[in-house]
Amino acid sequence: MDLNGLLKPKSFAIIGASEKDGIGGDVCRNVMAFMEDISKVYFVNPKRETVFEKKCYPSINDIPEPVDLAVLCTPMGAVYSVMEQVAAKGCKGAIIFASGFGEAGPEGKKAEQEVVDLCIKHHIALMGPNCAGYANYAEGIFPFAFLAEKRDRKGSIGLASQSGQVCLSGLDYYPMRFSYVISSGNSPVISIEEYIDFMVDDESTKVVAAYVEGIKKPEVLIRAFEKAAKKKKPIVLLKVGRSDKASELAASHTGSLSGSDKSIDAIMEKFGVIRVNDLQELYATSIALATLAELPKGKKAVFVNVSGGEAGVTADLAYLNDIQLSNLGRDTLDKIGAKLPFYATPNNPLDVTGTVAYDTEALAYTVEQLMKDPEVDFVVMAYTITYVFADMCVPYMVASLEAVADKEFRKPIFWLPFTEHSRNEESSDKLLKINVPLLPTGEYGLKAIKNVLRFAAYDHTKVNMEIGLPKPVEQVKTQAYSEYDSMMKLKENGVHIDEQIVLKSPDDVEKICDKIGFPLVFKIDSQDILHKSDVGGVILKIDSKERALEAYDQILANAKKHCPDAKINGVLGKKMLGMGVEFIVGVNNDPQLGPMVMIGLGGVFVEIFKDVVLRPAKLSRHEAMEMIQSLKGYKMLEGYRGSTPKDVDALADFIVSIAEYAYNHKDTLKELDINPVFVYDKGKGVAVADALVIEYVQ
Amino acid sequence: MDLNGLLKPKSFAIIGASEKDGIGGDVCRNVMAFMEDISKVYFVNPKRETVFEKKCYPSINDIPEPVDLAVLCTPMGAVYSVMEQVAAKGCKGAIIFASGFGEAGPEGKKAEQEVVDLCIKHHIALMGPNCAGYANYAEGIFPFAFLAEKRDRKGSIGLASQSGQVCLSGLDYYPMRFSYVISSGNSPVISIEEYIDFMVDDESTKVVAAYVEGIKKPEVLIRAFEKAAKKKKPIVLLKVGRSDKASELAASHTGSLSGSDKSIDAIMEKFGVIRVNDLQELYATSIALATLAELPKGKKAVFVNVSGGEAGVTADLAYLNDIQLSNLGRDTLDKIGAKLPFYATPNNPLDVTGTVAYDTEALAYTVEQLMKDPEVDFVVMAYTITYVFADMCVPYMVASLEAVADKEFRKPIFWLPFTEHSRNEESSDKLLKINVPLLPTGEYGLKAIKNVLRFAAYDHTKVNMEIGLPKPVEQVKTQAYSEYDSMMKLKENGVHIDEQIVLKSPDDVEKICDKIGFPLVFKIDSQDILHKSDVGGVILKIDSKERALEAYDQILANAKKHCPDAKINGVLGKKMLGMGVEFIVGVNNDPQLGPMVMIGLGGVFVEIFKDVVLRPAKLSRHEAMEMIQSLKGYKMLEGYRGSTPKDVDALADFIVSIAEYAYNHKDTLKELDINPVFVYDKGKGVAVADALVIEYVQ
Repeated sequence: MDLNGLLKPKSFAIIGASEKDGIGGDVCRNVMAFMEDISKVYFVNPKRETVFEKKCYPSINDIPEPVDLAVLCTPMGAVYSVMEQVAAKGCKGAIIFASGFGEAGPEGKKAEQEVVDLCIKHHIALMGPNCAGYANYAEGIFPFAFLAEKRDRKGSIGLASQSGQVCLSGLDYYPMRFSYVISSGNSPVISIEEYIDFMVDDESTKVVAAYVEGIKKPEVLIRAFEKAAKKKKPIVLLKVGRSDKASELAASHTGSLSGSDKSIDAIMEKFGVIRVNDLQELYATSIALATLAELPKGKKAVFVNVSGGEAGVTADLAYLNDIQLSNLGRDTLDKIGAKLPFYATPNNPLDVTGTVAYDTEALAYTVEQLMKDPEVDFVVMAYTITYVFADMCVPYMVASLEAVADKEFRKPIFWLPFTEHSRNEESSDKLLKINVPLLPTGEYGLKAIKNVLRFAAYDHTKVNMEIGLPKPVEQVKTQAYSEYDSMMKLKENGVHIDEQIVLKSPDDVEKICDKIGFPLVFKIDSQDILHKSDVGGVILKIDSKERALEAYDQILANAKKHCPDAKINGVLGKKMLGMGVEFIVGVNNDPQLGPMVMIGLGGVFVEIFKDVVLRPAKLSRHEAMEMIQSLKGYKMLEGYRGSTPKDVDALADFIVSIAEYAYNHKDTLKELDINPVFVYDKGKGVAVADALVIEYVQ
Repeated sequence: MDLNGLLKPKSFAIIGASEKDGIGGDVCRNVMAFMEDISKVYFVNPKRETVFEKKCYPSINDIPEPVDLAVLCTPMGAVYSVMEQVAAKGCKGAIIFASGFGEAGPEGKKAEQEVVDLCIKHHIALMGPNCAGYANYAEGIFPFAFLAEKRDRKGSIGLASQSGQVCLSGLDYYPMRFSYVISSGNSPVISIEEYIDFMVDDESTKVVAAYVEGIKKPEVLIRAFEKAAKKKKPIVLLKVGRSDKASELAASHTGSLSGSDKSIDAIMEKFGVIRVNDLQELYATSIALATLAELPKGKKAVFVNVSGGEAGVTADLAYLNDIQLSNLGRDTLDKIGAKLPFYATPNNPLDVTGTVAYDTEALAYTVEQLMKDPEVDFVVMAYTITYVFADMCVPYMVASLEAVADKEFRKPIFWLPFTEHSRNEESSDKLLKINVPLLPTGEYGLKAIKNVLRFAAYDHTKVNMEIGLPKPVEQVKTQAYSEYDSMMKLKENGVHIDEQIVLKSPDDVEKICDKIGFPLVFKIDSQDILHKSDVGGVILKIDSKERALEAYDQILANAKKHCPDAKINGVLGKKMLGMGVEFIVGVNNDPQLGPMVMIGLGGVFVEIFKDVVLRPAKLSRHEAMEMIQSLKGYKMLEGYRGSTPKDVDALADFIVSIAEYAYNHKDTLKELDINPVFVYDKGKGVAVADALVIEYVQ
């Protein structure tokens, strides 16, 4: 649906305009306080002639001009009848503030559905119900119900949120500068994904920030992610639901279904979307990305401090948060050393000492030398800015950055404080103007920097962007396949599988001995017996025809004994594989987000250390390699304690082929478990030792 | 040395008193602004009759009254001669602000040593040089050079810091309330450890907070830790030097030696000292501990929010930071549900909705119900307090807590905001008064809560507090012992070791076969061959006399071939051990802090996942058990994938015996490596398979 009538209306009507406390009054007061020109804003209230001395119409249909957007401050009970008038007026958008709809049980849900049907019929883009409206800073349009301080907050962060409080909290946070602030509410017509998509397209929005409780339209979200990745426009997402508890709350709050948290992580990773954990990180990361003129070209930082104590703290913070420190060049050290008092030594983190901090020229010179050093990718000025200054160090420091800013070194400077404060407004505005993000304290600041670095390093051309979103799954019945059938499904789809033969008679046993040779391995083949070893269904190291015949009988007898009702296809025979590094490749088909490929080393790696990584299919070879290298256990493949390096290339190819298989079967595959696949020495490839496919039954 | 003359002087003299900018002026201005009674403060300046209209003496010896403390604002060059006068006057304490001493290279160091000698000779407790003085809020004494805002900041946090900037930063942070703020500077006479010790004893100090760069007097620190643990007085320590970089800076800043970071961690763990990572965490944790009337009795939290969005965020924050959520009782849920609007559902995190948040009575009732629930150990009120309010929610919420505070539920309430601000002073003061700590945002707030919970759960009676601080090591020469000699050293000290025989002839080989039986293992025994397998020095599974004789010859021949210069004691023979879980127990004797016992599972556990834990010797059995259980690999000992549980009791006893051994040899042991010790099934004990002792050569 087109969102321009909703978010960029040429005119709008406030229905239920009022001077009283409460939403009708708040919205009118906001419009009058925040908007420069309200000639195209119409107040509607049948009980009033005027509101705040502005003409009031009895109904929306009495307005003589066209109205793009209807803003309903009416209580829940009156919403439907007003919406009928809105439809009659031909509005393209509507905002409903009232709560008591979808979030409030079956009756509310029913009432909501009636409104939804009406909106869809009349092509009305609906925001809410149960929302707080939006603020369009880009064009100065403010149909919102927040109680926020009026200030100039125009900027380039587009914030969309399923929670109104999160919008308000962003508005209360001084350093945030917005293109849009959108409170989406229950969003049964226009969903949070569509607002994100809108802001990815929107030219006034440089950074998209969003608070998301549940994903309703994955296809819209993926489309937005893909566009953003290609444009390199950052999306910063606070998606709650890390724990079951949070999912539970999300469900009760907006009635939306939370997709599995790990799948969402994997999708975001693929598209370079930045996932954050709380509001402070959301705002800080957005501010950093919106404020910087250019992204850092590399990952090496230099920290500038005004005391040895704080230099010690930044050194520890960098170490604990895995921020790489530049090794400053001899020349740089000499030049900055010359400005320092005799008792100080240049280093990184650099303690410039009070002497240099109060000397704008010396500090500007120092920062300039740091910027010139090819080892430095960005500078972090670390000092606390308070609201009121007891000493005047900060203005001197800011002035020195202003002096450097003119010189266009094209390397970012960040400002990191140590303790929380409202920051001095004059200083923070000056920093904003010279593209220096004022970060929050300590670890939050470093998280924001890390988020910026990861985004800067993201390269969409290395990624396979085809995502296999599945058809909605209605049936829950599933079907497991025997090892042989599972193997054949993989083989038919181009996955390399060694010869497998299902033996149905002693004759077959003799044939396989002649054909394949020894050692052999025999396993019971049945879709009903998934834990084959537990029932004596596996015999390894078969080294003679005689032993093979015995094994065949034994396995069948064991199966009959332990699983009398299982349908037995026969005994699966194959060449016994040599031992390699045990690796696991699996697929879990997320009902919303499609097949996720999971990899990890076997044994304690996966079972005790949960050392696995997940990515949505398809996968580029680059992605497969990244996945492998991101495992802690990767060392085992590199050649651990003098053992030869393993065939990581073959493993990457194998993972890509499994992702391809999963993608092609997105509507039928439920799970796939290849456990183990053996990884051999470099050049020797990989081999699948066991596989299990589970599909949805049509 | 007695610190009372320094920190609680009855009178003090400011030498270099002045009205100008700079230290002499700052100190006089501070004294006049902060102190109520300055009749016992004397200004000294030979060039002035008065300073700020207060009489000025030409020298300290012209002051007709006794002077406890001399505060030297004089430049570095004049310090020594002034100190001679100070000594003559009979002062018990002195503060030297000037820098250019020990931190500034060899000459400064020499000048510092002269001052130190003089102080020691005359029993003068010296603060500094290169410091900013101290503020004694408990008694209203302010000989300090900070440029800080004057406010009533009297409280119970004692802050001592090797960095003056860290003190200033604490003074700038509004919620901090102090007993003492001490900037220790280079501290060659009175060290940071002595200030910590002083504040552990000091009755006005409830929480000791400290910034420490290097440890100089471990024995003082340990004594302070032990006293604090027994009194249950919290010590919160920001010890920098996590990375090598930070250690480097610490060294150049105060010239003090940083002990190994991991040893310090282990010591702090033992004594229940809280280690924090940066200033925000230092201040937040101190504030929380100082503000609470009582510590939480358990770990279960309930979060109270004013919106579903923020409830989602707190749920995630709790999950990510491992904070346990209370399962609220049915009765509690019903009672709080009755106050909520129809569309809201009670839960934890609890969204009380705007309706209840603006209704003081309803919110007080709600909090009261939560406090009454036996599942709840503490309450976290989560809402952002800004400096100026655009909406008045916060005052209502604070009032509701005030109503509950009277009822003495003896359960803590914390306040957690979502974004950084200077907090509204009226509201924060009210919260302080009712013992509700106002935390910093998000993860910092949860870190502070976790620190409080860990401290609350600490029980010093479970811990062996004997720490084996070693004599200073002058010699660096070390001596490794052969496996047999290492084993015997352990055995002599009560560690259980199976029979080991050094074979010197084929005769000995026949004897061991008869005596011990098969299978045997033979290894080369030489202090010069530490990697025995690499030179063919180990033969396993010897199962006959014939094989034993062959093995004996083979091992000697291999040793002669690969290590012709090694001194060979013979071939070590012993019963081959059955395989158990491979475990490593080691000791590293920290030159400052004494023997640290390290444990972990062998193989990938230690080598890839670094899954080890360190604690200083001695160890109580409880500590040994805690160490074992804190390993990620503990699952392997509990009975992994159906295997039988292992003999953790015997392992704990073994670790205790190793700690005892290490403690007893604190002055000679350098390293001990027991790799592996096999851990068998429950009831079957443990057995040492190899050991290496390295000692300092006397």
